[in-house]
Amino acid sequence: MTTVAVVGATGAVGRTMLAILEERGFAMDRLRLAASKRSAGQMVSTRQGDIELESLDDFDAVDVDIALFSAGGDRSRAHAERFVEAGAVVIDNSSAFRMREDVPLVVVGVNDDAAAGHVGLIANPNCTTMTLMMAAGPLHEAAGLRSMVATSYQSVSGSGQRGVDELVGQHHALGNDFAALMDGSWVDPGAELYERPIAHNILPMAGSLVDGGYTDEEMKLVNESRKILGIADLDVEPTCVRVPVLVGHGVAATLRFDRDLSADEATSILGSAPGVELWKDRTPTPLDSVGIDEVLVGRVRETVGTPGGINLWVVGDNLRKGAALNAVQIAELIS
Amino acid sequence: MTTVAVVGATGAVGRTMLAILEERGFAMDRLRLAASKRSAGQMVSTRQGDIELESLDDFDAVDVDIALFSAGGDRSRAHAERFVEAGAVVIDNSSAFRMREDVPLVVVGVNDDAAAGHVGLIANPNCTTMTLMMAAGPLHEAAGLRSMVATSYQSVSGSGQRGVDELVGQHHALGNDFAALMDGSWVDPGAELYERPIAHNILPMAGSLVDGGYTDEEMKLVNESRKILGIADLDVEPTCVRVPVLVGHGVAATLRFDRDLSADEATSILGSAPGVELWKDRTPTPLDSVGIDEVLVGRVRETVGTPGGINLWVVGDNLRKGAALNAVQIAELIS
Repeated sequence: MTTVAVVGATGAVGRTMLAILEERGFAMDRLRLAASKRSAGQMVSTRQGDIELESLDDFDAVDVDIALFSAGGDRSRAHAERFVEAGAVVIDNSSAFRMREDVPLVVVGVNDDAAAGHVGLIANPNCTTMTLMMAAGPLHEAAGLRSMVATSYQSVSGSGQRGVDELVGQHHALGNDFAALMDGSWVDPGAELYERPIAHNILPMAGSLVDGGYTDEEMKLVNESRKILGIADLDVEPTCVRVPVLVGHGVAATLRFDRDLSADEATSILGSAPGVELWKDRTPTPLDSVGIDEVLVGRVRETVGTPGGINLWVVGDNLRKGAALNAVQIAELIS
Repeated sequence: MTTVAVVGATGAVGRTMLAILEERGFAMDRLRLAASKRSAGQMVSTRQGDIELESLDDFDAVDVDIALFSAGGDRSRAHAERFVEAGAVVIDNSSAFRMREDVPLVVVGVNDDAAAGHVGLIANPNCTTMTLMMAAGPLHEAAGLRSMVATSYQSVSGSGQRGVDELVGQHHALGNDFAALMDGSWVDPGAELYERPIAHNILPMAGSLVDGGYTDEEMKLVNESRKILGIADLDVEPTCVRVPVLVGHGVAATLRFDRDLSADEATSILGSAPGVELWKDRTPTPLDSVGIDEVLVGRVRETVGTPGGINLWVVGDNLRKGAALNAVQIAELIS
């Protein structure tokens, strides 16, 4: 008897978790869904039949074997350890436990072995970090990664359903008055989630400021990359930027290694890397990544300033490999 | 008697040149406008009165003192030297002559002195390069720039009116069916100028492929930066990306110098740099840059991986400082 719980089942990532569990035919006998008190009692249609949403606050986890959490850091901090004490393995999509030493941080296809050391909690990395790791991991394996300059193009769904709603709302508010946008006479539609309008614009500071002018998103790129690859002193320069795209996170990266790596060798490594689809003749875009399990890699080229490194582009569906798919893959690893 | 000619007067940059000549009250006695045969004979309303568009092919430049060219590289190559022979100084916005040794490549505010050495032709740099140079130039002056990793967010108007038309057309074609964009069932509206749809998407390869997987846009960032700053071996790693924004080119850059530069010192330098508006408390976006002469700089922070360098963000109106304004400023320098 395997019971799986999805916590945060009504969110953008939670809904994708349900879809991916079904797509992959994840072996389970019972599926339970947890959400906020507000949603409790509503019915969700699944392959296991219609399932009633349970309130997370009152959720009794005693029969749960695997819990996929994607309800935000606060709810993970409040409830995940209670699930572990009840006997579940929690795979948590929030940033709450990622840097805790006793919590493996796993990108399936890159550091699968780390999962085995869990003591009840396994963390799913940040979506931007994970997308980049799918390409950086295999190259590190071959040549020893020393430094990364990583600049992101993150879609609004990375901020959850609220990000999607904000972009869509602003598209409606700004309408198609392109003349006003070009001459600067557009009327600010306001912003709630983000600081400034994201429609027809980009916001070159994704996340919240933490230290030294960097955001939490940027420090995740630094710290989670170091933990996933096991390189304590990996040199990372991160810039996280929000773009007016619904789904698909892209990263442009300059990678340098312990030895010179040619574009041919990098191409050959990435061409057979798990979970990576290498595009050679065209450049993959966020729209190409929607609904795709693989992370798409393109523009693999030797560094032009100081030869020996690799410049590349990677883009992935942030709701799938960037979040829900990797969580389900971790569940498969430990089942 | 000063006669100014604007060549390519009907294009996005040409129209901005006319507006900026008027705004700045550029001293001239006669303004002549050249365009394609197709547009010749049409009237353009200016502060100098209504002016008839002349065909560039038949244009007699004998009375022209200063010619501002923005009609594309092919037309510059075909006509600019004819203007110079007739006695004009040509300020060319195309890439045709930028790397020629006898042609100064001038960013006003950064390397004004170079203009004095002209022999009839002065080149206006690429818009993305120029935007970045406005911040990199003063920092180089202070600490000696050694390397740049530059990743761009370029608006569609950088491709001229055709870029604007393509984005607008795709917004109309894709409409507001955000559900389809999120589940991947959107119908490709096709693309003419670009390889793939740019609306609700980003294209991580701006320009045309030239060598080693790099585009002409990217090699301009490398070669023009070296020429403008006078650093023959400047180490540049460029990635040029098109974003669904109408006006405003942004660049995220990691800069390293001959000596350590603190964020405080960089902030102080940029705070008094000509043509730069430093934003300290908020992050400037493309929408903020529209119609603004200054290049907006934000997110000035010390490098986090290997300390001593500077990460920053710069965004500017690519039709103004990125093109038309700088050309007019060059005209002012030599008048």
